[in-house]
Amino acid sequence: MASPETQSSTALLTDHYELTMLASALADGTGDRPCVFEVFARRLPDGRRYGVVAGTARVLDAIADFRFTDAEITQLATTAVVDDATLAWLADYEFSGDIDGYPEGELYFPGSPIMTVRATFSEAVMLETLVLSILNHDSAIASAAARMSAAAHGRPIIEMGGRRTHEWAAVAAARSAYLAGFATTSNLEAGRRYGIPTRGTVAHAFMLLHDTEEDAFRAQVEKMGADTTLLVDTYDITQGIETAVRVAGTELGAIRIDSGDVGVLARKAREQLDSLGAKDTRIVVSGDLDEHAIAALRAEPVDAYGVGTSVVTGSGAPTASMVYKLVEVDGKPVAKRSENKASRGGRKSALRRHKPTGTALEELVFGADAPPAAQPHDRELPIELMRGGQPVEGLPTLDDARQRLRQGLVSLPWEGLKLSHGEPAIPTVFPEEQR
Amino acid sequence: MASPETQSSTALLTDHYELTMLASALADGTGDRPCVFEVFARRLPDGRRYGVVAGTARVLDAIADFRFTDAEITQLATTAVVDDATLAWLADYEFSGDIDGYPEGELYFPGSPIMTVRATFSEAVMLETLVLSILNHDSAIASAAARMSAAAHGRPIIEMGGRRTHEWAAVAAARSAYLAGFATTSNLEAGRRYGIPTRGTVAHAFMLLHDTEEDAFRAQVEKMGADTTLLVDTYDITQGIETAVRVAGTELGAIRIDSGDVGVLARKAREQLDSLGAKDTRIVVSGDLDEHAIAALRAEPVDAYGVGTSVVTGSGAPTASMVYKLVEVDGKPVAKRSENKASRGGRKSALRRHKPTGTALEELVFGADAPPAAQPHDRELPIELMRGGQPVEGLPTLDDARQRLRQGLVSLPWEGLKLSHGEPAIPTVFPEEQR
Repeated sequence: MASPETQSSTALLTDHYELTMLASALADGTGDRPCVFEVFARRLPDGRRYGVVAGTARVLDAIADFRFTDAEITQLATTAVVDDATLAWLADYEFSGDIDGYPEGELYFPGSPIMTVRATFSEAVMLETLVLSILNHDSAIASAAARMSAAAHGRPIIEMGGRRTHEWAAVAAARSAYLAGFATTSNLEAGRRYGIPTRGTVAHAFMLLHDTEEDAFRAQVEKMGADTTLLVDTYDITQGIETAVRVAGTELGAIRIDSGDVGVLARKAREQLDSLGAKDTRIVVSGDLDEHAIAALRAEPVDAYGVGTSVVTGSGAPTASMVYKLVEVDGKPVAKRSENKASRGGRKSALRRHKPTGTALEELVFGADAPPAAQPHDRELPIELMRGGQPVEGLPTLDDARQRLRQGLVSLPWEGLKLSHGEPAIPTVFPEEQR
Repeated sequence: MASPETQSSTALLTDHYELTMLASALADGTGDRPCVFEVFARRLPDGRRYGVVAGTARVLDAIADFRFTDAEITQLATTAVVDDATLAWLADYEFSGDIDGYPEGELYFPGSPIMTVRATFSEAVMLETLVLSILNHDSAIASAAARMSAAAHGRPIIEMGGRRTHEWAAVAAARSAYLAGFATTSNLEAGRRYGIPTRGTVAHAFMLLHDTEEDAFRAQVEKMGADTTLLVDTYDITQGIETAVRVAGTELGAIRIDSGDVGVLARKAREQLDSLGAKDTRIVVSGDLDEHAIAALRAEPVDAYGVGTSVVTGSGAPTASMVYKLVEVDGKPVAKRSENKASRGGRKSALRRHKPTGTALEELVFGADAPPAAQPHDRELPIELMRGGQPVEGLPTLDDARQRLRQGLVSLPWEGLKLSHGEPAIPTVFPEEQR
């Protein structure tokens, strides 16, 4: 059995039914019909004002690795998932279609056409599960992280939640948090893979390993210099700060408080540090922080936040609920008609309309061939991502995505940045339904 | 940049601070101190009655791959995470310690010593992040899945949530759900990697691809035989069922309903199927089901459930909140003393005490060297997992874990299986604190 890390194909990271659909569609010829699939979210997580697109670059990478090598074909043959004709088709599979979509870091709202995949049914249906896994996870994390970044109001946040989520989800979560404005991550693989700056000093275990707190501080300062972060809450915080400054001097970089009422403790710590002459020593707080806790600490003398569980679990919304729906076959719109899940057929595009001041007014989602009359301050949202199965040149980088999100958040009406439950920051308008 | 799947080392799936702690501990000699680290959960997710241990086998695999190859060393050197002496130590790193723990499928409660790692500080501290990532994720999913299995009361559940979580988390989630009693999964990689039976037929896209519902049903039955599952809710369910039976005959395997009030629809569908002579055609329901929805459907004529989002996101508890704490150094207990996070020092073991009827009474957690006087119906909980860095022979299989969980759930007091919020099903008792 291969380990997850020694396997280069992403092709089995998919649902059984994608292959059985393929088998039937190849057999009756419908598999060759040109189709359009659209990724969108019917709603935002309960009470959220906006969502943040993330994962697009990972999707494009995963599609490049979506190949059925001998190992995958053998597995499918052994377990009789599909017939030999389908296996032969899969062995040659290579996505050759076109993909457009919202760039990473773009805001989205209910119904925004976040990604549009154009190819034959057979080629496009195969990508459903993988595309959704990546976008649903990464966008959920980025959407939560953006709220935390906004609540931190410019103070840096370090992502340190890797231990609270699947070991590879942790790497993608660090990427999404960075995209959404976090300053650094604790995750070394995210550092390697995405060039995100990593940070870390010590845990309580390091303190307990040593015979005294002073021994532990000395060992750390000896190795990392005085410009390190000493963890002062293992025993008694007041004593810990006193010892920390005695050991590291007033050049001590920072202290970290990971437990207790961190707001009160930060205030006391600031006073004590100042009185000891360590006026430039920063205060880092961590321990079950979420966007609400961060906002509540705004008035306290906190210099940086460490955030773990809440960001990697999407702060109550661990998935973005995006779906991948067939909206067009042979150039004609199609849509399911049943009780609680209305869908809109047809290939779509979108633009965001703004006031002259730059404040966003509404998300317009329209038939791709019927754009509304342009107005000043409209901004077209989807970009070209893939043509003929190849990523287009010059796709936005992770830093571009950070920048895009910063600008997007600035453009929201002020209610849109509130952390409380409410309606989406701007309405999604489908002009064709208003005629 | 390597893709996640072409990289064999798990060593960077870890936090920066594990390495900076290591560097300091190697420098001052404390890194050689024999230590015991313990994995436990301070509490269960809000209102839950029990937790289910899962991920242990994945932890042992990941430890075997926890090696710093040239690629990892180069990355750490380039980013100056640690000094050359530490890099040299890492290049030779291979875990050589002992691990004991609760076997997969075992129930756990607040304070249960789920895993105990014994090694030098340097060797053991390195594993913290990876061990927690796996156990926190996999146990969260298994704990939610077990509630769903119990609510389904013997009816099979298919796991189909891969699209709602990170693409590799999806594979582990399928494993955890199967461990917790799910019958099958849609995830093909979980089929390959863990031998879990996979299932799937078609999505609404397949229905919409065809000119008519009848065309789609014909294509599917042609390819997969009459013993397939036809999706009848794309347009009108009553019409869909009529067409399904007309096309497939009364031998039709099953219908699936994925939207609407599935309880009411299942009842109507059963009547209609029976009236059409398709008395053995099963009814599969899906669409935003969780343990509460499954329980509410108990009286309805439903033959199987498809569960997605709720199981892969832990049904409101996406992480198990387990921690990896240093509890012993040089044979002496250690523990952090600060405001809101009391910890118990010392290496521990545990047993579960039962009534003569087999009903569980309490979880006893005690110093490993001071077991309480044995009583009949006590069951020791931890098993040996690793000795000298090697997995012990004959570790439990995934099927063993399924079996163990079934037995564990039967042993709970009846309140312990209630889905409503409440206290843990049995109390955790620390006999040494009662003296």
